[in-house]
Amino acid sequence: MDQALTRARSLIREIQDYPNPGIRFLDLTPLLADGPSFHSIISTLAPLAKNCDVVAGIEARGFIFAAALAHSLNLGFVPIRKRGKLPYLTHEESYGLEYGNDVVQIHQDAIAEGARALLVDDVLATGGTASAGIRLIQRSGGIVVGVSAVIEIDVLQARSRLSQDFPTVPVHTIFTM
Amino acid sequence: MDQALTRARSLIREIQDYPNPGIRFLDLTPLLADGPSFHSIISTLAPLAKNCDVVAGIEARGFIFAAALAHSLNLGFVPIRKRGKLPYLTHEESYGLEYGNDVVQIHQDAIAEGARALLVDDVLATGGTASAGIRLIQRSGGIVVGVSAVIEIDVLQARSRLSQDFPTVPVHTIFTM
Repeated sequence: MDQALTRARSLIREIQDYPNPGIRFLDLTPLLADGPSFHSIISTLAPLAKNCDVVAGIEARGFIFAAALAHSLNLGFVPIRKRGKLPYLTHEESYGLEYGNDVVQIHQDAIAEGARALLVDDVLATGGTASAGIRLIQRSGGIVVGVSAVIEIDVLQARSRLSQDFPTVPVHTIFTM
Repeated sequence: MDQALTRARSLIREIQDYPNPGIRFLDLTPLLADGPSFHSIISTLAPLAKNCDVVAGIEARGFIFAAALAHSLNLGFVPIRKRGKLPYLTHEESYGLEYGNDVVQIHQDAIAEGARALLVDDVLATGGTASAGIRLIQRSGGIVVGVSAVIEIDVLQARSRLSQDFPTVPVHTIFTM
């Protein structure tokens, strides 16, 4: 791992019992506030999006990485949002989180038929959000070329679950914690 | 206005009566999905952030523009979030929206003392969110060098309200609608 990524990793702050008791929350805000660290993350994600048409990000923290990545490659950005936040016609998928349940949506016209999309989020925990995001992109007509996250919480085994449900979608993460 | 910005503007979709009756919602998702249009927005914002240390963005749509802008200039990104979303010690400010009331927060350690920050959001409506954002950055020790938004809804007069409350903070918007 290069020096900038090593520094970026050192800036991830662990917060115990947030948002609920027993949960260890990984706070990326100190990393984001450091320009070179944030830059090193986007540079590491960039090769994965090189042959894509769009980058999709999951609300809200996924927006930060996905939008910066999309812009850096002159690609479009597609938001996947919590229910009720997108104003036009949507598809929706529900999923189980590490702590609770939720519904995410995508605009039905968000992705052109056959467009290649990289899905980006901040943390890959159980993989529930990522699975829902993959299904939403596919229902919009897009081809998911990969899932990228900054952090993978390996004890939650998202990777094996995703590879079973979506064997053709590679998963890439930068840090394992 | 150059060709790319003209195209970007044409991709803003107006949605009537969302989220509430009588509200005209400006949907930026078609603009974001178009790489060159998204790029032209960030390029237009970039000169305003050149002497900054960080770019602050307001959840959730402000994250998209602020993060891309921060990354493009190798600057740090600071999220201003809805109440309960930031895991560490926070400052908070309440504000009146175009449709309702809300509270936003910033991490107390988000910005180094004396750091110069540009505040970015998608739409400048009444200016309530922007005012709260300015106060949060100032309470964290930062100097707000400007407020930038992609769209200004001029009938709601945010600009005059902000110039009265924060006379030293310039306001810059790309499109007036």
